[in-house]
Amino acid sequence: MIDKEYISTDFQKLQDSICCDLEKSDGQSVFKQDLWNRPGGGGGRSRIITDGNVIEKGGVNFSAVSGTLPDAIMKALGLDQSEFFATGVSIVIHPKSPFQPIIHMNIRYFELSDGTCWFGGGIDLTPIYIVAEQARFFHNKLKHVCESHETGSYEFYKKWADDYFFIDHRAETRGIGGIFFDKLSPSIGKSKEKIFEFVLNVGRTFSPTYLYLLEQNKDTIFGQQEKKWQALRRGRYVEFNLVYDKGTKFGLQTQGRTESILMSMPPIACWEYDFKVLDGSAEAQTQSLLRKGIKWDD
Amino acid sequence: MIDKEYISTDFQKLQDSICCDLEKSDGQSVFKQDLWNRPGGGGGRSRIITDGNVIEKGGVNFSAVSGTLPDAIMKALGLDQSEFFATGVSIVIHPKSPFQPIIHMNIRYFELSDGTCWFGGGIDLTPIYIVAEQARFFHNKLKHVCESHETGSYEFYKKWADDYFFIDHRAETRGIGGIFFDKLSPSIGKSKEKIFEFVLNVGRTFSPTYLYLLEQNKDTIFGQQEKKWQALRRGRYVEFNLVYDKGTKFGLQTQGRTESILMSMPPIACWEYDFKVLDGSAEAQTQSLLRKGIKWDD
Repeated sequence: MIDKEYISTDFQKLQDSICCDLEKSDGQSVFKQDLWNRPGGGGGRSRIITDGNVIEKGGVNFSAVSGTLPDAIMKALGLDQSEFFATGVSIVIHPKSPFQPIIHMNIRYFELSDGTCWFGGGIDLTPIYIVAEQARFFHNKLKHVCESHETGSYEFYKKWADDYFFIDHRAETRGIGGIFFDKLSPSIGKSKEKIFEFVLNVGRTFSPTYLYLLEQNKDTIFGQQEKKWQALRRGRYVEFNLVYDKGTKFGLQTQGRTESILMSMPPIACWEYDFKVLDGSAEAQTQSLLRKGIKWDD
Repeated sequence: MIDKEYISTDFQKLQDSICCDLEKSDGQSVFKQDLWNRPGGGGGRSRIITDGNVIEKGGVNFSAVSGTLPDAIMKALGLDQSEFFATGVSIVIHPKSPFQPIIHMNIRYFELSDGTCWFGGGIDLTPIYIVAEQARFFHNKLKHVCESHETGSYEFYKKWADDYFFIDHRAETRGIGGIFFDKLSPSIGKSKEKIFEFVLNVGRTFSPTYLYLLEQNKDTIFGQQEKKWQALRRGRYVEFNLVYDKGTKFGLQTQGRTESILMSMPPIACWEYDFKVLDGSAEAQTQSLLRKGIKWDD
């Protein structure tokens, strides 16, 4: 029986295995854990890694919270049941090297007291320098997970990610996207078990995919120019998360644990007035690929 | 006759004189100007100063825009007239030294096609290290401007600033506040001329107040620890501006000029997971003063 305890237990196991994989890959730093309780109900395990060999700052968080939703949130979600349970795993990794991509993953489960429930989640990649071959590798991995679950779902969830991870005021995507999905509810021909299996598989694809990418780029030499471009791209990452990201906004509005929510912030970010990439530069090449609708899968 | 041309002309003169004052005070860098037009109507003069002797990054912007308000904004403002005119001067200065405070000032005028109009604005100070004597100087200057205009208005606008410049998810104020006011409309006993005079006086108090503070702190030596605390406080500044600031949100939602709106971003900002100030440190002293309701005036 796939109930909330079952789901949150599997989410915790996933958090454990991903932390273990990342520590092995980093080879230097280890995660520090904060256990916390939510005054309204439930709590979480925040795990943060900093100053690693590869990872400059990263978080792999698990939470399982319950309680009563604020009126404003209920209205925004179009709900009339206010007793909720929510559990999920959220990851954001900021590597040191500008040749290592930032990654974000989230999988989540939401349940109301009347039994209504749904899953959501996604993975997206934000390379500071986009390498087409690696972007294709990333998308093909996600495509494989999606298509094993349901034919045609990759294209659908890929477009959803393009639309979601978009910085409207910059008219650019956050990175090369990935997949995004929400409100996946059990229905005829689509059991809760089947959806949960898909969501968990999304989570399980994180390590082999990201660790491969880190391995590819680990020896690339970088200098001041690349670090500066990384800091500027991280500034855009901050803009997306604070202005648009629904999870961040929902968390801050519902008096979530601020330090866990904002673990997504980069260790350092820069802003330069009216920064322009140089024609023909590697930065210009990446900038030109920060748009929706690029086909990255084979 | 105080019409929109008159107001925007005086706002431009104020921009000129403040830029001139800041250049003199900095003694090294000068403002660069970008003239821009808004596709929907009007435009502005963005002036940015960087890498100065005192100022690391700062903007003094003037704009006068007009057009049709988007439906969502009209609804949010409770308006039924969509043709608008808006003009204002906005300033944010990020000094190099952590012993120099960040300052923000804005004065603005808004008019609808049916003749409805109002003024808004404010000044607030964000010291990285709060010095009580200087906080009192700052607030007394603002008190003088307010009380010359209307008895009791300082206390009212000071509380408004405390409430406005508040980072809810951190349960702390952005800095030591200042004054904030909005929707000041002409009424019986309060002419448009009188309100405009007050608003302009708020603008005119910027230079003598801020330049005095810069002068006070210019020789204070700082090191890595102070720079780190500055970068963390700048991170909070980013959080406030992107999550709460109405001007920023309004600008980004109405397809304003992104580079002019986000000139308020610091040159560099840091985030550290669960950063805690050391008991008894200068940072702890400042942290303890980041709250509403402190009486800074004499």
